[in-house]
Amino acid sequence: MEPASFIKRILGEFVHPSEAAKAARRARQAIDLCHALLSERGEVSGAALAREVLSEYLQLPEAARALFFDLLASDFSPRPEGVAAAADGYRSDPSPENLIRLQRAVEPARQELFRRLNMAPGGTAALIAMRQQVLAGEKTSPSWRSVDADLAHLLGSWFNRGFLTLQRIDWHTPAIVLEKLIAYEAVHQIRGWGDLRRRLEDDRRCFAFFHPALPDEPLIFIEIALTRGMSATVQPLLDPDAPVEDPARADTATFYSITNCQQGLRGISFGNLLIKQVADELGRRLPRVHAFATLSPIPGFGSWLRSARGDIERLEGGRAMLDELSRLEAAGWHRDARGARALQPLLMQLCAHYLLHPTREGEPADPVARFHLHNGARMGRLNWLADVSDQGMRRSAGLMVNYVYDLDEVEKNHEAYVKDRHIAASHELRALARSCPLARKAAGT
Amino acid sequence: MEPASFIKRILGEFVHPSEAAKAARRARQAIDLCHALLSERGEVSGAALAREVLSEYLQLPEAARALFFDLLASDFSPRPEGVAAAADGYRSDPSPENLIRLQRAVEPARQELFRRLNMAPGGTAALIAMRQQVLAGEKTSPSWRSVDADLAHLLGSWFNRGFLTLQRIDWHTPAIVLEKLIAYEAVHQIRGWGDLRRRLEDDRRCFAFFHPALPDEPLIFIEIALTRGMSATVQPLLDPDAPVEDPARADTATFYSITNCQQGLRGISFGNLLIKQVADELGRRLPRVHAFATLSPIPGFGSWLRSARGDIERLEGGRAMLDELSRLEAAGWHRDARGARALQPLLMQLCAHYLLHPTREGEPADPVARFHLHNGARMGRLNWLADVSDQGMRRSAGLMVNYVYDLDEVEKNHEAYVKDRHIAASHELRALARSCPLARKAAGT
Amino acid sequence: MEPASFIKRILGEFVHPSEAAKAARRARQAIDLCHALLSERGEVSGAALAREVLSEYLQLPEAARALFFDLLASDFSPRPEGVAAAADGYRSDPSPENLIRLQRAVEPARQELFRRLNMAPGGTAALIAMRQQVLAGEKTSPSWRSVDADLAHLLGSWFNRGFLTLQRIDWHTPAIVLEKLIAYEAVHQIRGWGDLRRRLEDDRRCFAFFHPALPDEPLIFIEIALTRGMSATVQPLLDPDAPVEDPARADTATFYSITNCQQGLRGISFGNLLIKQVADELGRRLPRVHAFATLSPIPGFGSWLRSARGDIERLEGGRAMLDELSRLEAAGWHRDARGARALQPLLMQLCAHYLLHPTREGEPADPVARFHLHNGARMGRLNWLADVSDQGMRRSAGLMVNYVYDLDEVEKNHEAYVKDRHIAASHELRALARSCPLARKAAGT
Amino acid sequence: MEPASFIKRILGEFVHPSEAAKAARRARQAIDLCHALLSERGEVSGAALAREVLSEYLQLPEAARALFFDLLASDFSPRPEGVAAAADGYRSDPSPENLIRLQRAVEPARQELFRRLNMAPGGTAALIAMRQQVLAGEKTSPSWRSVDADLAHLLGSWFNRGFLTLQRIDWHTPAIVLEKLIAYEAVHQIRGWGDLRRRLEDDRRCFAFFHPALPDEPLIFIEIALTRGMSATVQPLLDPDAPVEDPARADTATFYSITNCQQGLRGISFGNLLIKQVADELGRRLPRVHAFATLSPIPGFGSWLRSARGDIERLEGGRAMLDELSRLEAAGWHRDARGARALQPLLMQLCAHYLLHPTREGEPADPVARFHLHNGARMGRLNWLADVSDQGMRRSAGLMVNYVYDLDEVEKNHEAYVKDRHIAASHELRALARSCPLARKAAGT
Repeated sequence: MEPASFIKRILGEFVHPSEAAKAARRARQAIDLCHALLSERGEVSGAALAREVLSEYLQLPEAARALFFDLLASDFSPRPEGVAAAADGYRSDPSPENLIRLQRAVEPARQELFRRLNMAPGGTAALIAMRQQVLAGEKTSPSWRSVDADLAHLLGSWFNRGFLTLQRIDWHTPAIVLEKLIAYEAVHQIRGWGDLRRRLEDDRRCFAFFHPALPDEPLIFIEIALTRGMSATVQPLLDPDAPVEDPARADTATFYSITNCQQGLRGISFGNLLIKQVADELGRRLPRVHAFATLSPIPGFGSWLRSARGDIERLEGGRAMLDELSRLEAAGWHRDARGARALQPLLMQLCAHYLLHPTREGEPADPVARFHLHNGARMGRLNWLADVSDQGMRRSAGLMVNYVYDLDEVEKNHEAYVKDRHIAASHELRALARSCPLARKAAGT
Repeated sequence: MEPASFIKRILGEFVHPSEAAKAARRARQAIDLCHALLSERGEVSGAALAREVLSEYLQLPEAARALFFDLLASDFSPRPEGVAAAADGYRSDPSPENLIRLQRAVEPARQELFRRLNMAPGGTAALIAMRQQVLAGEKTSPSWRSVDADLAHLLGSWFNRGFLTLQRIDWHTPAIVLEKLIAYEAVHQIRGWGDLRRRLEDDRRCFAFFHPALPDEPLIFIEIALTRGMSATVQPLLDPDAPVEDPARADTATFYSITNCQQGLRGISFGNLLIKQVADELGRRLPRVHAFATLSPIPGFGSWLRSARGDIERLEGGRAMLDELSRLEAAGWHRDARGARALQPLLMQLCAHYLLHPTREGEPADPVARFHLHNGARMGRLNWLADVSDQGMRRSAGLMVNYVYDLDEVEKNHEAYVKDRHIAASHELRALARSCPLARKAAGT
Repeated sequence: MEPASFIKRILGEFVHPSEAAKAARRARQAIDLCHALLSERGEVSGAALAREVLSEYLQLPEAARALFFDLLASDFSPRPEGVAAAADGYRSDPSPENLIRLQRAVEPARQELFRRLNMAPGGTAALIAMRQQVLAGEKTSPSWRSVDADLAHLLGSWFNRGFLTLQRIDWHTPAIVLEKLIAYEAVHQIRGWGDLRRRLEDDRRCFAFFHPALPDEPLIFIEIALTRGMSATVQPLLDPDAPVEDPARADTATFYSITNCQQGLRGISFGNLLIKQVADELGRRLPRVHAFATLSPIPGFGSWLRSARGDIERLEGGRAMLDELSRLEAAGWHRDARGARALQPLLMQLCAHYLLHPTREGEPADPVARFHLHNGARMGRLNWLADVSDQGMRRSAGLMVNYVYDLDEVEKNHEAYVKDRHIAASHELRALARSCPLARKAAGT
Repeated sequence: MEPASFIKRILGEFVHPSEAAKAARRARQAIDLCHALLSERGEVSGAALAREVLSEYLQLPEAARALFFDLLASDFSPRPEGVAAAADGYRSDPSPENLIRLQRAVEPARQELFRRLNMAPGGTAALIAMRQQVLAGEKTSPSWRSVDADLAHLLGSWFNRGFLTLQRIDWHTPAIVLEKLIAYEAVHQIRGWGDLRRRLEDDRRCFAFFHPALPDEPLIFIEIALTRGMSATVQPLLDPDAPVEDPARADTATFYSITNCQQGLRGISFGNLLIKQVADELGRRLPRVHAFATLSPIPGFGSWLRSARGDIERLEGGRAMLDELSRLEAAGWHRDARGARALQPLLMQLCAHYLLHPTREGEPADPVARFHLHNGARMGRLNWLADVSDQGMRRSAGLMVNYVYDLDEVEKNHEAYVKDRHIAASHELRALARSCPLARKAAGT
C-alpha cells in the first residue's frame, strides 16, 4: 500500500492532510522497526528492539494505528508463489520434510514478529490489546482478519490451560486485581468497593484464572454464593448488606456470575474449565457442599417472546394470551402480586419452551443455555421473579434458571448434547415445556 | 501400521513375541486415548483425559514407546487430499480466509493433541521428555521427524523469552533445583555439594532461566566468577578450597560455564539472551564490574590439529614441527616446564589460526567460537595452560580463549558476522594467527 | 475481690442484678481458665488452653470485662511478703543469684499468663486490644495500671524494632491492609478508595512497619509526596484529581502524614525510626531526591493564640493587634485576599514565636514540634495558608511548618535538644520569631 | 574492674602482655559503645549505633570477649542502693506504682542494652550466639550468670511459641537450611546430602520451628518415618538405600529423631510443643495415620548397668548374672545369635527396671524418659537389638523404647506425672520390670 492510499484512507475519515501524512509516516516508522526486529539485528538485540517497537506502537496516534494494521496485513503475509511451490512439492511427495516445508511456507512472518514482540516487558499484554483493536476493526477492514488469525493462533497456544493458575480472590488479594473485578464484572455490576467486599466475605467465593505473564490481570472470574439449597432469586445474593452466613452450614454452591475479562482473548475458552475446576476445589475444601448449580440469566427470552407473538396469536385462545402478556409492558408489573400470579403459569411455560425447544440449527436459541449445555450441565429449576432488576425484568421477565453441574454426569451430558443434541433437563422443566400452548400446537401438527 | 508390522519391528529387536504383542496392545491403547482426547469427550473432560493419557504413556514399556511414536507419526498427520484441496483453493484465490484454511489443513492433529496433553499436571515436562526420546530415535525412525517438528514448534512458542524468568541461583535456592545443576553441568563437572557450594559463594554468581510451568527445572544456567582482570586459567575458579574474595573489589565478570539443561528443548536458543541479560544485571548491581568475558574451551582444536598433520608436514620445516608436536602425546607433557615453553609459540599460533580461519562454509570450525561470534562477542585473549584437566589437555592442549561481551558492540559484531562473516577479534589474536606457519603458507599461495 | 463487690460495682452502672451476677460468673470463669493456663496443665496443653481462654475472654459481655480486669489486677500480682523476703535477701547479699531471685519475685504471674496467652492463634492481636481497653479504663480503675504495666512491658519487648519489617504500601498491597489505612489515617482523612489510590500513585510513597505476628495490621504508616522543592501547601498533595507527576524529576520527599495505628501499643515509639529509615530507603532508590521534610500541622497554635490575648493586650498597640486578630473569628476570612495579606505578618510572627518559645518545662508547647525536634529534625519554613481545610484553619489559622530531616545532622540536633533544649531552626524562622511583638516585649523586660 | 585486673586475668591465660593490653582496650571500646547505645544518642541513632556495637563485638579477639562479658556483668547491673530504696517504698506501700518502680529498679540496664542491640541487622542471631558463649563460660566466671539471666529472660520472651512458625522441611527447602540439619542433627548423624535426601523422601517427614527473625535457622527439628506398625529397629529407618514406601499405606508415624539446634536458646523449651503440633498436623493430612510414637535411645542405661553391678552381685545368683553380662564387653557380641538370645531376657528386665524405677528425686533416671513422660507420653514397647550402631550398643546395649503420644491422654498423663510422679507405661513393660531380679529383691525387702 502506497502512502497515497494511506492519505486517502485518512482523508475519508476527515483528518487534516498534514495530520494524515504525519500519521502515515509514524505508522511506516513502526513497521520499519518491525522489519528490523525480524532481521539479523533482531536476533541478537531482540529484547531491546522489541521494547522499541512496542513503545513506538503504543505511542501511535489513533489514525496511524489503522495504517499500522493495514501494513501488518499486507507486508508480513506469505508470498503466494512460495506457498504454491511448497504445496506442489508436498503434492508430488507428501513426506514429513515436505509437509514441514509447506507448514513453514504458509506461516506468515507476522507470527515470528509477534513472538519476538512478546520478549518486550509488557509484550503479552500489548499483543492482547492489539488483538482487541484488530477484532473491533475487522468488519470495516477485512484484511485485518489475517492479523487476527495469527494473534488468535499464538494467544491460543500461549494461554493453554496447562499454563494457567486458578487463584482464589478474597480480601487479601491486591487492590490492583480487585479493581479489575469491579471494572470487568459483566453479569451483575459491582457497585464499588463496599459491594465487592460483600462478595468476598466468608459465605462467598471468587476464583479466577491467571497467566504467569499477566499476574495482575484475571482472565476470567466466577462468583459463588455458599447457600443452603439452590438459590432461587439473585437479589439477596447481591445485597451488600445481607448478613454473612456460616459457610460450614452450606450444602450448595450457587455460581451467580462468570465474566470473561480479556476481549483480546475472545474465542479462547476458559469458562468450561473454570466451572469444573472450581466445583472440584470447593468439593474438596467444603465436604458438606455437594450441589453445584448456577443461577443464570435467560438473556434471549424477552426478544424471543416478542418475536413469537405471531405464533401465539394463531393459537386457539391466542388473542387472550397476548392480552395477558401485554401487561408485561407496564413497568413494575411484577409488584402487583395478584396480576403477577395470574401471569406466572403462561410465562413459565413459554420460557421452558424457549429454553428446551431447538431452533433450526438443532440447539436452543438461548446463548447462555447453549454454553452450559455444551459444558455438560443439566437444566434444573426455572425461577419466578428471580431477577427483578431493570435488566432482569427487561431481558427475561425476571426469570432465571439453575444449570446443575453434577460432576459425575457432565461428560455423558456433553457427549449426548454434542452428538445427538440431546438436552439434559429436569422433569419439572420438561413438564412445563410440554404444557406450553406453543408446544401443544407443535405436537398437534 | 498393522499389529503384524509392530511385532516384526519388535522381533527385530529380539523381544519375545508375546512381549511384543503385549507392547503393541499397550501402545495401541495409549493411542486410542489420544484419539479420545481429541474427540468431543476431550473437549469437556480435557484435563482428566489428558492426565489419563499421560499416565498411560509414562507407563509404556520401552518397546511400546517406539510403536507409540510410530502411530503418533502415522495417525495424526494431515490427509494429503485435504491439503491439496486447501492449497488449490488458496492458489486460485490467495485471500486471508483461504490462507487460514490452508494453515489449518497443514497443521497436524498432533499439535492439538499436544496442546491438550499440556493440560495435565506435569504435561509440559512430559512433552519435553517425549521430544528428547523422539530426537534420540529420529535417525533410525525418520517418520518421527514430523512428531519432532510439531513438538519443536509448540515448545518454541511456549518457551518464548517473554515467559521466562531470570533467577539468581545461590545457597538460598531449594535443593531440588541445586541438585539439577550438579546433574546437568556440562562444561566443568560439579563434584558434589561442597563443590557446588563454592560456586555459589559471594565472589561467584549463577543465573538460570526458568519457565513458570517448570519451577524446579532450570532451562539453562551460567556460572560466573567475579575477578580482578579477565581470568586466564580455569582451575583456580573451580577450586572448592579457594578463598572467597570480596566481590566489591572485582572489575570483571568471567563467565566460565554455560549449560543447556533440557535436551528436549534442543534448537530453542536461550544462551545468547542469557549472557546478555546477565551482563546487564551484573552491570547494574555491581557498578565496578565493567568487563564481561567468558573463559571458554576450544573443543575442536585437538582433533583439528591431528587432521592438520598432513598440511603441516608439507610446510617448510614441517617435519620438525610435527616432531615437536608429537610431544603432546605424552601424558603430563605440560609439567615439564622447559618443554612446554618450547612448544608454546607454535601451539598458540596454530590455535589462533584454527580459531580465526574460516572453513569452507565461511565460519570458523570451532562450535563454541561460532556460538559466541554469532552472539556478537569478540575473540579476546588466547590463554596458555588455561585448563590442565585431562579433558582440557586432550581437547585443546590446555588452551582456552576469552570471548569478550562488550554490550555496546555486540549488535554491530553480530551483524558483521552474520552478513559478511566478519570475525571480531583482538589484535593479539590476529597477530598470532598471522604468524602461524599454515597461514603464511596460505598467504604465500 | 468478692462477688458481692462485683455486683455492687455493676449495680453502680445500672445493670440489672441478675445480669450483673451472670457477668460476674462469666468473668470468674475466664479467670479460672487463666489460672489453669498457669498451672501444670497449662504447661502441656498450653496452646489449646490459651485458645480457650482467649475465646472465653472475647465473648465476655462488656460488663464482665471490667470485672475480668479487676481480677487480673488483684489475683495475679506478686505477694508483698514474697517480694519483701527476696528484697531482704538481696540487701544482705547483692549477688547475681539474689538479684535474679528478686527479679522473679517482683514479676507478676500476669506476665507469664500473657506470654502463654500469646500462644493462641490471634493471641498477639488480642493482647494489644486488651491493653487498649485497659488504657481506656485506667483513669476510673487505677488498679488496672499494673495490668497495663505488664502488657506494656511485654509488648515493648515483642515489638522491638529488630522484629519489624518496613514495607512499601502501594496498589499491589492486599485490600485488607489498604482498608486499614483508610480507617486509621489520623492527619488528613482518606475519603474512600479513590482518594487512597491517588495517594499510592507513582509520585507518592507510603511505607509502614509490620510485625510478623500481625501481617495484615500496619503498626504505623507514613505518606510521602515526591515533589520539586519543599511543599508549601497541603491541599494540592491531597487532591485526588491532581495529575500524577514523574517521580524521576522530584528532588524532595515531603512527608505529609504519619499515623500510629495501634492504640494498644501506645508509648512504644516507632515514628522516629520510621521517618529515618524511609528517608534512607528513598535516598537509595531515588538518588535525585536529596531533601526530606515534613509538611506538618501546628495543632496547638490556635488555642495558644486565644490564651495569649491577655499578653498581647498588654503590649504597646496591643488592642489594635487584638482587633486585627479578631477577624480570624469570621469563617472564610482567608478568602478575602487583602484582609488576609494584612494579617499575615503578625500571625506569622506570633506563630514563629509560639513554635520557638520554650514553655516552663523548657520545651516548645507544640506537641508535633516536640516530636520532630526530639527526632533531630530542624524547623524549616513557616507556610502561609498552607492548610485551608476547616480543621487547618481552626487549629492553626491555616499555617503549617516544614520540619527538615537532614540525616547528617539529626543525631547532633537530637543531642543538643535533649541535653540543652537547643532548638534547631532556620534563620528565617528565628528572624520571624524575633520580630514578634511578644518576643520584643520579653526581650525588653 | 580496672585494666590492671584485666591484664592479670589474661596473663593467667598465658597471653602476651601487649596482646592482653590490646584486648583490654578493645573490650573497653566495645563497652563504651554499649554505653553510648544506652544514652540519648542511642535513642535517635539506635539502629546505626547497634550495628556499630555488634560489628565491634563480633571482631573482638577471643581474649577480649571474656573481658567484655566481665564488664557487661559489672557495669550494667542495678545499683543495690537504688533497689533498696525502691524495695523500701514498696514495703511501706505495696501500690501498683511502687511495684512498677521496684520492677524498674531491679531490671539491669543490660536488658535495655540487649533490646537495643536487637535493632541491628543480625542482632537476634548475635544475641543467641552471645548467650551460647556466656553459658559456656559461666562455670569459671560466675558473674556472667547475671548476663545469662538477662539474655535468657529476653530470648524466652521473644521466642514465645506464638511467634514461631512450623515449617515442613523437604527437598524444596533452601540448601542454606538443609545444611544446618546436617550440621545440627544430634541423635542419628546425617552422613551427607545423600543421607539427608533419603530422610526427606515421600515416606519420611521433617518439621522444624522457625522464628521470623532467623528465617534460615531451624530452632528445633524432628524427623519422622511413616511406617506400617510402630518401628522396632532404627537401622532400616536410617538406611539411605532403603526403598521409598507409599506414604498412603502407612498407619504409624515413628518419630526417630528430635534435635534442639540453638545452644544459645538452652532452657527455652520447644520440643513438647513441636511433637504435639506435628502429630496434629500429620493426623489431619494423613487420616490413615492414627498412631504416633517415638523410637528413642535410652542413653543412661549403659552407665547405670555398670553402676548397678554391686547390687546385682548381692542378689541370689547375682554372680552368674554378672558373668552373663560380662559378655556385653566383647565388641560385636550381638552378632552371635545364640549368645544374644541367652542374654535377652535378663537385659530387657534390667532395662525395664531402669526405665520405670524412680530415683531418689522421684523421677526415672533416664533423661529421655523424663522428657517424654513430662510431655505426657506413655512408655510403650522395649525393643531388642533396635540400634546396633556402635553408639547404640555402647549406650544401651542396642535397646530402644517407643514412647507413645496418644493425644487424648497426654494431658492426663502429664498431670499425673507432674503431681504424683505416676509413670504411664504399657502392661508389657511393667511386667518386664516386675520380673527383674533387682525389682524382686526390692519388693522382697
